[in-house]
Amino acid sequence: MKKYNNYSVPGFLASAVSAGLNKDGHLDLSLILSQKEAVGAGVFTTNQVKAAPVLLSQERIKNRFLRAVIANTGYANACTGIQGLNDAIETADTVAKGLGIRPEETVVASTGVIGAYLPLDRIKKAIPNLIKNLSPHGFQSVAEALMTTDSFPKMSYFEGNAGGYPFHLLGLAKGAGMIMPNMATMLSFLLTDIYIDSQTLWPVFRSAADRTFNRITVDGETSTNDMVLIMANGVAGNTNLDRSDIREFERGLTDVMLELAHMIAKDGEGATKVVIIEVDGAATKHDAHTAARAVGNSNLVKTAIFGQDPNWGRIMAAIGRSGIKMEENKVCIWIDGTKIVDGGVMTSEKEEREAAEKMKKEQLTITIQLNQGRWKDRIVTCDLTYDYIRINAGYRT
Amino acid sequence: MKKYNNYSVPGFLASAVSAGLNKDGHLDLSLILSQKEAVGAGVFTTNQVKAAPVLLSQERIKNRFLRAVIANTGYANACTGIQGLNDAIETADTVAKGLGIRPEETVVASTGVIGAYLPLDRIKKAIPNLIKNLSPHGFQSVAEALMTTDSFPKMSYFEGNAGGYPFHLLGLAKGAGMIMPNMATMLSFLLTDIYIDSQTLWPVFRSAADRTFNRITVDGETSTNDMVLIMANGVAGNTNLDRSDIREFERGLTDVMLELAHMIAKDGEGATKVVIIEVDGAATKHDAHTAARAVGNSNLVKTAIFGQDPNWGRIMAAIGRSGIKMEENKVCIWIDGTKIVDGGVMTSEKEEREAAEKMKKEQLTITIQLNQGRWKDRIVTCDLTYDYIRINAGYRT
Repeated sequence: MKKYNNYSVPGFLASAVSAGLNKDGHLDLSLILSQKEAVGAGVFTTNQVKAAPVLLSQERIKNRFLRAVIANTGYANACTGIQGLNDAIETADTVAKGLGIRPEETVVASTGVIGAYLPLDRIKKAIPNLIKNLSPHGFQSVAEALMTTDSFPKMSYFEGNAGGYPFHLLGLAKGAGMIMPNMATMLSFLLTDIYIDSQTLWPVFRSAADRTFNRITVDGETSTNDMVLIMANGVAGNTNLDRSDIREFERGLTDVMLELAHMIAKDGEGATKVVIIEVDGAATKHDAHTAARAVGNSNLVKTAIFGQDPNWGRIMAAIGRSGIKMEENKVCIWIDGTKIVDGGVMTSEKEEREAAEKMKKEQLTITIQLNQGRWKDRIVTCDLTYDYIRINAGYRT
Repeated sequence: MKKYNNYSVPGFLASAVSAGLNKDGHLDLSLILSQKEAVGAGVFTTNQVKAAPVLLSQERIKNRFLRAVIANTGYANACTGIQGLNDAIETADTVAKGLGIRPEETVVASTGVIGAYLPLDRIKKAIPNLIKNLSPHGFQSVAEALMTTDSFPKMSYFEGNAGGYPFHLLGLAKGAGMIMPNMATMLSFLLTDIYIDSQTLWPVFRSAADRTFNRITVDGETSTNDMVLIMANGVAGNTNLDRSDIREFERGLTDVMLELAHMIAKDGEGATKVVIIEVDGAATKHDAHTAARAVGNSNLVKTAIFGQDPNWGRIMAAIGRSGIKMEENKVCIWIDGTKIVDGGVMTSEKEEREAAEKMKKEQLTITIQLNQGRWKDRIVTCDLTYDYIRINAGYRT
């Protein structure tokens, strides 16, 4: 599982250390530096309760340029008031001073328990080592340092071409629990050496986030700390981007973010299966999204998936309570291509047995045709298992 | 647990048999008869996917008079199309014919697996015995026959006085899973011998349902089969009700329904604890309700309760993502009277230890003060445990 991925992106350095923020002494503090000033963009949690690092980073990214991001696990630094904000600022200041860059170009990301204050002394003490260890090959260790209840590090890589120059794009993410982003999700950092201006980057990045990270749900919970950042340092050498370059970059970015999003669903707390919920034929765009989310967040659907039981009645019930425009007798449902519901009633026991067989797979698609209109949407989710309970009933204790 | 409650209500008979609808041969078919025509009212699921018995009973109750209700477990008779509706009608017709009453005064309630057709032969074959066994002391067996994944039968009883005449009120319910009613919940039957006219009964009944059954949630799922019925047969002898009689009846009805609602939360699938979520100081009535429901349905809050961990950060995060008007630094949270959050941050470790102690109890109250306005609401819920997964991952198989 922990195969060493020696990914690098020209002009970026990375490192990770253990600052003793978690009991078991694994890597928990990481740093990414762009050697040149990079164009930056970010999307952040829509939760009204925003962690201090979210508030700080959201403010700083308005300048549209970034040099460094420091990330810690163990402490979310959320619900920590003024002290929490000061702690985030002091973390960034210490990094900026050590690197000789401006604090305004330094952002902070945190994940962990809400409500506890950041152990600032331990973090400040670890920063010199973090800086000393910076290397073009430090990204694998950053991906590991981002893990909390994640069971594997999440990285995705793309190489493309812009204006005749090869460019590179590396994505890192952490996921696992408290995941139903509305705007961004958990922590993810995307690093590229392409040259792209801020006005071009923002809509491409935003739309890719919307089609990837904003389409996964593990448990219907939106975290206080969700953050996706992108840094583009222009080291690749291209001086502009034509329409086809932008399309290629957009495709690469979406692919990388989609792979990370799937990894997050696959590694959802306790998950044994990745499930894609496709809704088609909805009366409105909003209906398509609402229906997909109602099914993808239903505890009864998710436990049935864990039990490998094609219990389509629970899918019907979830659609029915979602509040969308629907007619029961027009709904059709497929499990991985096997039609188990036609016009609101079951097709046959043969199809149900076939669907049960397909549910033994580690990835499956549930397709719902509403026959109300032309809108569609999809959500990537996972099953709900004993291990979700084990992980979350014992997280802090 | 299964103490025999020899409750009876003058003018009502009841019985239950095993019709072989479940594998283990327990009681699964039950009948309640009012010997006189009774004033009837009902509230039904708001799920757009409505089971055949819901569609039939909802239609028939418009006449405002009822004589009999037949209930089965094992089969929800939902998502069964025209055949399902015909099966429900034929069930009611068979009962009406056997009893010599009108089919229009006979309703049907079902609970069980969605999508499978009713085994009508087995039901019709059992109806003669069901009728033969009718007795004034059959209600305990009805409560048992309503159980599916319920671990105990649910009954509540009240005696009052109206216009100088004693009256009786008996409530029966089943609960357990797929429970977050919007209008009614699971199956519950309320039987009283009070004389009350339909115009008086309806608002009292509706308001009691709203304050009790509509304020519990086990898993955020609204069933296709939710149904609460009341029958008032006027055998008590009162000929009218003055304002204080109505108040007494309303109090009794609310108490009985509240006790049943608490029993349902306590017996939520896999639950080990009953938790009351109180929200106060909301800007609007809707905000109060939305916040209470967001916390009460949060898997992360519910697993923390199972783990007896006062992980208030998850409560803050649930409020924050609920979309209500809030300011993080104005929120205060108590666990059974111990203040663990003040102005959005933790009070002290001492309070947190005290709250952890309190969370060992089987019933606890989480109080949230938003300090935004004057509205409040409350939800009764339960924790999320390994057994919820076990029950729902293996329900059909």
